[in-house]
Amino acid sequence: MQATIIAIGDELLIGKVVNINAAYIARKLNLIGIRVREATVVGDNRQEILQALERAHEQSKVVILTGGLGPTSDDITKPALCEYFGSKLVFNPDVLEQIKVFLTKRRGILNELNQSQAWVPDNCALLTNAIGTAPGMFFEKEGRCYFALPGVPFEMEKMLDEQVIPILIEKFKLEHIYHRTILTTGVAESVLAETIANWEKSLPQEVKLAYLPSPGIVKIRLSVYHHPQGQEMIAQAEQQLHAIIPEYIFGYDDDTLESVVGRLLLERGATVSTAESCTGGNIALSIVSVAGASAYFKGGLIAYSNEVKIQELGVDPKILETHGAVSRQTAEAMALGCLKKFKTQFALAVTGIAGPDGGTPEKPVGTVWIAVATESKVISNDFLFGDNRMRNIQRSTIAALNLLRKAILDC
Amino acid sequence: MQATIIAIGDELLIGKVVNINAAYIARKLNLIGIRVREATVVGDNRQEILQALERAHEQSKVVILTGGLGPTSDDITKPALCEYFGSKLVFNPDVLEQIKVFLTKRRGILNELNQSQAWVPDNCALLTNAIGTAPGMFFEKEGRCYFALPGVPFEMEKMLDEQVIPILIEKFKLEHIYHRTILTTGVAESVLAETIANWEKSLPQEVKLAYLPSPGIVKIRLSVYHHPQGQEMIAQAEQQLHAIIPEYIFGYDDDTLESVVGRLLLERGATVSTAESCTGGNIALSIVSVAGASAYFKGGLIAYSNEVKIQELGVDPKILETHGAVSRQTAEAMALGCLKKFKTQFALAVTGIAGPDGGTPEKPVGTVWIAVATESKVISNDFLFGDNRMRNIQRSTIAALNLLRKAILDC
Repeated sequence: MQATIIAIGDELLIGKVVNINAAYIARKLNLIGIRVREATVVGDNRQEILQALERAHEQSKVVILTGGLGPTSDDITKPALCEYFGSKLVFNPDVLEQIKVFLTKRRGILNELNQSQAWVPDNCALLTNAIGTAPGMFFEKEGRCYFALPGVPFEMEKMLDEQVIPILIEKFKLEHIYHRTILTTGVAESVLAETIANWEKSLPQEVKLAYLPSPGIVKIRLSVYHHPQGQEMIAQAEQQLHAIIPEYIFGYDDDTLESVVGRLLLERGATVSTAESCTGGNIALSIVSVAGASAYFKGGLIAYSNEVKIQELGVDPKILETHGAVSRQTAEAMALGCLKKFKTQFALAVTGIAGPDGGTPEKPVGTVWIAVATESKVISNDFLFGDNRMRNIQRSTIAALNLLRKAILDC
Repeated sequence: MQATIIAIGDELLIGKVVNINAAYIARKLNLIGIRVREATVVGDNRQEILQALERAHEQSKVVILTGGLGPTSDDITKPALCEYFGSKLVFNPDVLEQIKVFLTKRRGILNELNQSQAWVPDNCALLTNAIGTAPGMFFEKEGRCYFALPGVPFEMEKMLDEQVIPILIEKFKLEHIYHRTILTTGVAESVLAETIANWEKSLPQEVKLAYLPSPGIVKIRLSVYHHPQGQEMIAQAEQQLHAIIPEYIFGYDDDTLESVVGRLLLERGATVSTAESCTGGNIALSIVSVAGASAYFKGGLIAYSNEVKIQELGVDPKILETHGAVSRQTAEAMALGCLKKFKTQFALAVTGIAGPDGGTPEKPVGTVWIAVATESKVISNDFLFGDNRMRNIQRSTIAALNLLRKAILDC
């Protein structure tokens, strides 16, 4: 079954706002086996909305509209819907009551604009909006379901999850849908694809495969739709894949490298600290982006200058002279200094040339050394990324967290 | 003139990836006076791509496609384009050479998949991709311009800025377009709008105004399209605005708080260091995201635990006991300790409750104290943000850099 998503709003077409709603809706529809045929954005324009509705009608059984329901003058979704579904606007006292309750809670003022939200089409079912003033609408036409939802993401998300999805599951009897996402790092998409090409060919045709690459990480998603044995098929495929590329897989589904590292540390009751040069704090930031990180992250040092590397991490000035700030020796000395300073079980150190300047023929921009120290040993590795500064910082962070993950597993 | 944006990729239609490219492209097209009529997303499906192309052809003079150019089997944009434009794929040795250069730099491996990128349509102009393997393509058909760009945002953005926009300006003689973006912080959009309402009303009708709010920062964009006196009109409006809200304006156009702070420090030959608790390294990261930051940033400490605050920054344990880790006293002690440790002219310290847990009735989640120390004085300020962890980290970073900016200007 197919769906079309129509986002309405000039603010999306001038690039002021990113349409994050479409991805959220798509994800939720996919999980119940509804494929999104198209996700489009049109302006606050009657003609363009009507054209989009007509096209959606031809394509899909499910149409989700977002945005344009607000009370201000540029919101014309409601009149366009009335025209398309042959509705009249009628005053609904229940909606007015909900708006009043909402406004009282938020100390808002009931003005003419808010009151206009209580005028709704006479041939739709209304969806409650507990956290905003615009109710959602559910129309049916020629076997198709149309939902008009607010554009504010958290209002839309709540309405979709609690009202739209249950309606769709019931209307279309949706069952037996399975997904699994396998997360890999340390391998380029093209190399990965070649490595697992035979496995891919051997998959039952019901198992759909998608590559989802992002900088430093490639996700492999397996899906089976409307098949009672879906779960077993996916489990088997996943097991086979794990046997081929165990070294690249770091997690599943909603895991992140930082959440996996956090879980491993928590399980062991271990702590970590960081010493960063070129990444300038990004590794620490990734670690603390996980709620509850204070249980295993004690602190970090950003050793941007050589002076700080020497004085704060005890790096021998001779190492810096002989091997340079970007070297195995410096990275390892930083990690050992960090371990001592913060008294943690693991210490992660990174030194590199983020660019755009500072490269040499032997050590071009993008050269990065990463080291992990524990009381009993130090491991280190070098990488060569590209010439984009922020990208190098991101990729160094992923590589560093992955080296830390391996070090924890090897302990 | 109108444009249509077509993003291609199943990953967008299953919601794994948010289509941030569309907003970026819309913003850049708007800056040269091209209105986006529709932004759509279709899957990796020949028929759907062809239908989207046909519709775009009817709507717009400019069509921008993103995604689907990668080497893996699910990328079918190239064959679909060949069908639509009646092209044959031909082998292009120059493209292969570029791919080899790129891969050598990145220690990548040239395999069959990568090599396939060198097969390109015979009737398009190629757009160079210096930071990826997929070249862009520029087709012309019946007075319309079609650009096929990679889906990876940073590859797409570079190609759009450096190649597509100049081609469009030349092809369609887009001239006399003027913009100026005035950057403000420390004031909510609604308050700002009220404060400058009279100024807004007094603007000549040729001067278009747009508010571009993001967390902690509101940008005000002035635009004049196709008018020879545009530059003077904008300069006058900007001057008037500056007289009304000098305290909120921190920069213009492509400035960022971190680039402004960097410039101010460079001008004074001064240095800075950071001591961060709840922001976990994000302030240091912002500072070093500016190329050349090593000239004024010496280092920073992430003092996540109280132990580290005491041992590394010399915060008196009594202060922590009496006033708590999130207090004016702790923030100021951290800043002073940081100044001493890193021997810089300025030291910036932040301590707060990022959430989701850790709040109390007196100090709810979102409470943040920020201090800036110099040899002669310490200033500090408190803030109350919301309950979203990453949002609080972002807003604290902006507030901290702004306090640092003011401290430098006051010196």
